[in-house]
Amino acid sequence: MMKAGPPTPYLVVDRDVLDRNLERMRSIAARHGVRLRPHMKTTKSVEIALAAHGGQAGSITVSTLREARHFADAGFRDILYAVTTTPAKVTEIAALGAATGAQITILAEDATVAAAVGAEAQSCGLRLPVLIDIDCGYGRSGLHPDDPHLPVLGRLIHDHPGLSLAGVMTHAGQAYDCRDADAVRRVARQEVSATVAAATLLRDIGLPVPTVSIGSTPTALLADDLSGITEIRPGNYQFLDLTQAAISVCGPGDIALRVVTEVLSHHPGGHALVDAGALALSKDTGADGHYGIVARIGDTPAPPGLFIAKVAQEQGYLRGPHGLDLTWLLPVGTRVEVLPNHACMTAAAHDFYHIRSDSHAPDIWRRVNGWH
Amino acid sequence: MMKAGPPTPYLVVDRDVLDRNLERMRSIAARHGVRLRPHMKTTKSVEIALAAHGGQAGSITVSTLREARHFADAGFRDILYAVTTTPAKVTEIAALGAATGAQITILAEDATVAAAVGAEAQSCGLRLPVLIDIDCGYGRSGLHPDDPHLPVLGRLIHDHPGLSLAGVMTHAGQAYDCRDADAVRRVARQEVSATVAAATLLRDIGLPVPTVSIGSTPTALLADDLSGITEIRPGNYQFLDLTQAAISVCGPGDIALRVVTEVLSHHPGGHALVDAGALALSKDTGADGHYGIVARIGDTPAPPGLFIAKVAQEQGYLRGPHGLDLTWLLPVGTRVEVLPNHACMTAAAHDFYHIRSDSHAPDIWRRVNGWH
Repeated sequence: MMKAGPPTPYLVVDRDVLDRNLERMRSIAARHGVRLRPHMKTTKSVEIALAAHGGQAGSITVSTLREARHFADAGFRDILYAVTTTPAKVTEIAALGAATGAQITILAEDATVAAAVGAEAQSCGLRLPVLIDIDCGYGRSGLHPDDPHLPVLGRLIHDHPGLSLAGVMTHAGQAYDCRDADAVRRVARQEVSATVAAATLLRDIGLPVPTVSIGSTPTALLADDLSGITEIRPGNYQFLDLTQAAISVCGPGDIALRVVTEVLSHHPGGHALVDAGALALSKDTGADGHYGIVARIGDTPAPPGLFIAKVAQEQGYLRGPHGLDLTWLLPVGTRVEVLPNHACMTAAAHDFYHIRSDSHAPDIWRRVNGWH
Repeated sequence: MMKAGPPTPYLVVDRDVLDRNLERMRSIAARHGVRLRPHMKTTKSVEIALAAHGGQAGSITVSTLREARHFADAGFRDILYAVTTTPAKVTEIAALGAATGAQITILAEDATVAAAVGAEAQSCGLRLPVLIDIDCGYGRSGLHPDDPHLPVLGRLIHDHPGLSLAGVMTHAGQAYDCRDADAVRRVARQEVSATVAAATLLRDIGLPVPTVSIGSTPTALLADDLSGITEIRPGNYQFLDLTQAAISVCGPGDIALRVVTEVLSHHPGGHALVDAGALALSKDTGADGHYGIVARIGDTPAPPGLFIAKVAQEQGYLRGPHGLDLTWLLPVGTRVEVLPNHACMTAAAHDFYHIRSDSHAPDIWRRVNGWH
């Protein structure tokens, strides 16, 4: 009735799949001749950041200053904080750099704000490297490459004694609205051309633009041509998930992350209740409204058609094809593994990864969550 | 341009509003003559659990064994673990009780599973108190009061040397599907009648049913008549949220929890980007698809119509009424307070509450997250 293992719910990472995903992206970066600066916002793990660089504390991207601190404490020295920095954050960034020796590169998209950030940096005795955020059509943040503010901002950053111009960057979040690989490739071309156009414009007015950085897992995996790009910042590629599978950038067998959960009961309504709910799985839904697909029952692959239909805070409603009696397939106490819709959100409520591998010893790796 | 305060994003709790919410529920319990066993799954804070009982470590409900351990370590001695217990969880429950002296009451809904749980409990030298989970129409878990398995389960628990029958319980989650207070009152009547019917049936076959427990914030706040009920287990009432306001059980002024976030930039698309996104706010949406309503700008009440329209992992898109120029109202660096749609989920990614009050000193209270 039961299977040994840690108390449920917990995350398991298939290290062999993870290693394959990491190696695939390293090859892509090498083939295009670009630097790989993985975004650690998905996995938030020092062990995975090291593995992403073949064991080195290489260049990384982070989404919070707590991540920056966590990785800096672990020896990472070149960290991009990929959320626009305001003056209020500069003291924390300065303290972080002073305590760890890490170089933190920041983003800017407005000249007035950048001037205030530069003044703060200067008063902390810093000269902060800055990437200008370019909007390549996603519409979240940044300047369009033809925005007349772009050269003004570039010049200000270059000339400010508290800042240095490191280059330009973009994020093609619209890749997640694609339905197939061809659409992703079109977004990748948009991403490259907008970023290269911005770099060219700045170079044309005599500014140095050493870094031309793009980043999203779908475009990094599928782009044909990265001419003019110097750096890629994919993050989700480390785990992948059902959202990536839905837009054809991977198959379900490439997903390294699973939620392990136990069957708690069977309800006359036809569902099995499991102990992974909205927190352990996240509220991100798949195309047909499910909260995850069952990939394994115990140690064996699950038959198709088992999914989490609904979630409460700590409980999931596991359903199968209409008419299937789950009480025989999934007795109470059975452990099942659920593939996540969105690995970034699913992993967020968990503190640890249980590492499984055919070629390495089992292990437990820590995640860093929160902000401060 | 900036306002002093902790680094954003963070949670602020208005202690005066919180105290009013706690006092209101204590009065309701006293008026109905029932025990208040607050569900701590929303706030997950020792300070709030104590305040809920007027300073005492009274009876509480929890949703995870990590919560149980956290509160037991803080001196709480009477804890209901309100998720069905399987045999795999008994060792952890036994260890927790042995280490802290806390009495953990568990749920059961199936005789075969309860017998296996009882055997585990017995082998740990325990006699675990059990509430039978009754389905009052929500359809998630538990037995309908007329299910023929109910008396069998009651008898088994009563007779098992590893278990003792503590009573019956239900959760009327369907209250959240209501559109108005009258509909909530109808659900409350269903909740009471199903639970009392189950208790009566068990008593009729000679079993003791000391506890008859119901629990949801909407029904606890609005129920007219709790005859036959001995205990209520509301949880969300401590903070409340926009979901509760939408079903008329509170007003926006009763919501004690806010997310404080900083304006990062303005986009030509018309939104201000803030540093609270899917993790800091949660992905729970309001009726019209928003991720939270702006209640304050700095220290002053916000004009109506400002809301979070979209979220990325660490960024929210703040929008106003069509045509409103946010750059003047919300300069970069401005801090705004966002009312949450679903306090349980919004608080989940945070480790601390910053406590604000007109009558108490500022403070920082810890939350307990995770499972193990």
